Amino acid sequence: MKTYLLTPGPTPVPESISAIFAKPILHHRTPEFQALFQEVKVGLQVVFQTQQDVMLLASTGTGAMDAAVSNIFKKGDKVLTVNAGKFGDRWSKIARTYGLETVEILVERGSAVTGAQIQDCIKMHPDAKAILFQAHETSTGAMMPVQEICQIAQKHQLLTVCDGITGVGVFDLPMDRWGIDVLLTGSQKAFMLPPGLAFIALSERAWQYAKDSDLPHFYFDLKKERKALETHQTAWTPAISLIQGLQESLRMIRAEGLEKVFNRHKTLGQCARKAVDSLGLERLAKDCPSPAITGFWVPEGIDGKAIPKLMRDRYGVTITGGQDELTGKIIRISHLGYVGIFDLTTAFSCLELVLKELGHGLSFGTSVGALLKEYASEDRAK
Amino acid sequence: MKTYLLTPGPTPVPESISAIFAKPILHHRTPEFQALFQEVKVGLQVVFQTQQDVMLLASTGTGAMDAAVSNIFKKGDKVLTVNAGKFGDRWSKIARTYGLETVEILVERGSAVTGAQIQDCIKMHPDAKAILFQAHETSTGAMMPVQEICQIAQKHQLLTVCDGITGVGVFDLPMDRWGIDVLLTGSQKAFMLPPGLAFIALSERAWQYAKDSDLPHFYFDLKKERKALETHQTAWTPAISLIQGLQESLRMIRAEGLEKVFNRHKTLGQCARKAVDSLGLERLAKDCPSPAITGFWVPEGIDGKAIPKLMRDRYGVTITGGQDELTGKIIRISHLGYVGIFDLTTAFSCLELVLKELGHGLSFGTSVGALLKEYASEDRAK
Repeated sequence: MKTYLLTPGPTPVPESISAIFAKPILHHRTPEFQALFQEVKVGLQVVFQTQQDVMLLASTGTGAMDAAVSNIFKKGDKVLTVNAGKFGDRWSKIARTYGLETVEILVERGSAVTGAQIQDCIKMHPDAKAILFQAHETSTGAMMPVQEICQIAQKHQLLTVCDGITGVGVFDLPMDRWGIDVLLTGSQKAFMLPPGLAFIALSERAWQYAKDSDLPHFYFDLKKERKALETHQTAWTPAISLIQGLQESLRMIRAEGLEKVFNRHKTLGQCARKAVDSLGLERLAKDCPSPAITGFWVPEGIDGKAIPKLMRDRYGVTITGGQDELTGKIIRISHLGYVGIFDLTTAFSCLELVLKELGHGLSFGTSVGALLKEYASEDRAK
Repeated sequence: MKTYLLTPGPTPVPESISAIFAKPILHHRTPEFQALFQEVKVGLQVVFQTQQDVMLLASTGTGAMDAAVSNIFKKGDKVLTVNAGKFGDRWSKIARTYGLETVEILVERGSAVTGAQIQDCIKMHPDAKAILFQAHETSTGAMMPVQEICQIAQKHQLLTVCDGITGVGVFDLPMDRWGIDVLLTGSQKAFMLPPGLAFIALSERAWQYAKDSDLPHFYFDLKKERKALETHQTAWTPAISLIQGLQESLRMIRAEGLEKVFNRHKTLGQCARKAVDSLGLERLAKDCPSPAITGFWVPEGIDGKAIPKLMRDRYGVTITGGQDELTGKIIRISHLGYVGIFDLTTAFSCLELVLKELGHGLSFGTSVGALLKEYASEDRAK
């Protein structure tokens, strides 16, 4: 059975990248690898839109989140966390693990935090040092108002620590221009690679904080990583094959052009929303839709777990349901990374087959028609 | 840009086969290769549905057609050829090249030869020794009545030489049961491999003819190939990597089961026809549709060459137009080999985008809806 992947990670790996993994692995203490590494360093700065060093960790994105906290803060520091879903919740858990005082801004699932919520929280906790948030809450598909968060934070001298895991390379997140102090992501998202590699960059201000940090860390030592970067190395053994793949991935992104990459995702998001609406399904994140993921509530009377299960086991199409308290209640169709319009026609064709089978009334072709119509109008608008 | 291949050859190569080509190549005079070759020999007999040896030629299907003629006939032999398109025409050309007397049964493009046409021709040419035909005329998508052709031929002691290039492994062609004397195909069709390998099997009767053949051939020496098979070799250097891939391809076909493979193609053909009809397009081969290819006439006022060109250059979807006298007049969407329902939703989604752009009135989602509806009913019938 042919298989199709429309999940928020891993995302599909392009054939030209898979082909690299079939090539002999390089040794990392060689001029060849250093030349590759140098190219990759520059490419990462382009995608992060920063002049700062972007460090490569042999870990997943969660490792980079862990590193951000343990390298920047001091025991007892107070931080605000935006908890709008499973990944916001993870910021709180990591902060608490290291003994930080954590003030959670709890946001309804499927919604974005508002500037007012943040301002109120800061008013109540003027001694907070930082705000930890997602650019995009992967568990619900809600986009956060990153630029607004940064503006408010700057006004109150709060450090902004942004999990850009399903954001960097999907939509505009200009680190330097917006003043994001810490930005991080993982390889298996917009970078179109297998999991195992994470990227993190710190602003000058964040590096200042890092000087005073007293939290324990050994593997995730960002100062050591920055030092290693000077000689085109990583502190520990690099995830060599993934970095070989990253070279191709960055070449692909730069060849397409960052703006075009963002526009492609934006269009796919618009198409997916039209498709969901056409089936009479209720979308999550209605006021803050993302170009990465489109989620909707499972319709009344349908077994929510059966939808992704049937799509995967019977038709080879992998999408995701909800996590934690949203398990069985929502469906998420992802459209980030190496994804185009025909991945969406596949996903919605399959969704129609499965919804119909599960008893949801629909006329075949409805959602695909809606998304093609949207695509055609976008296409002509360009 | 992601690319999609819906042509009658090459057909998409499964990832598990592509991965084999990244492995080191074997040497062919080794026990390892001989063991592989032995497995492949048996697998080919299963797919050809024959007890005869199936020989492997390092050539395309046309090479096997050439070999069939030059190994079986004598100079001046009279043969009937069924010319229902470009590939029927090729039989005539090859036969004439070797100095055979060729009687062509010319069939309207998009139609199949009838039993009556063949019987009439035999009546006029009782001295003909063989009939050369396609199981399926790739250039139009017309299925030939192979079993009927064999029955008539047997009644008149005519040898049946069947080009099964887009037939073997697509629909039922039981060589021994139907009494097909020569059956041949190429690797880049139902076998899901790159081009460069051809397969051919001869009945006992055909081997008898071959004894008396006086036509010149050196590379394509089927007697020599049969002899080599005894020691699990080919006469010349085998196309090693393709044969390594063939092992996986045959395993896939046998794991799915021949009948299921045929049913899958049959269902895809039915779905494609519903899709074409729903757009108000006029199909070719209406009375003899095939499970391999669905063709339709380019609608009035639309530039026939622009359809596949736009689909490919703008959307990455490769289908085929017409060949020779049908150039610019027809469109062929293929659905054979490593193809499933979502390849069809891709092809027809793309076709809708392009037809609309070229001015053909349609409502988006129409053809995809029609094919999903057909698929769902087939799916439930199983």
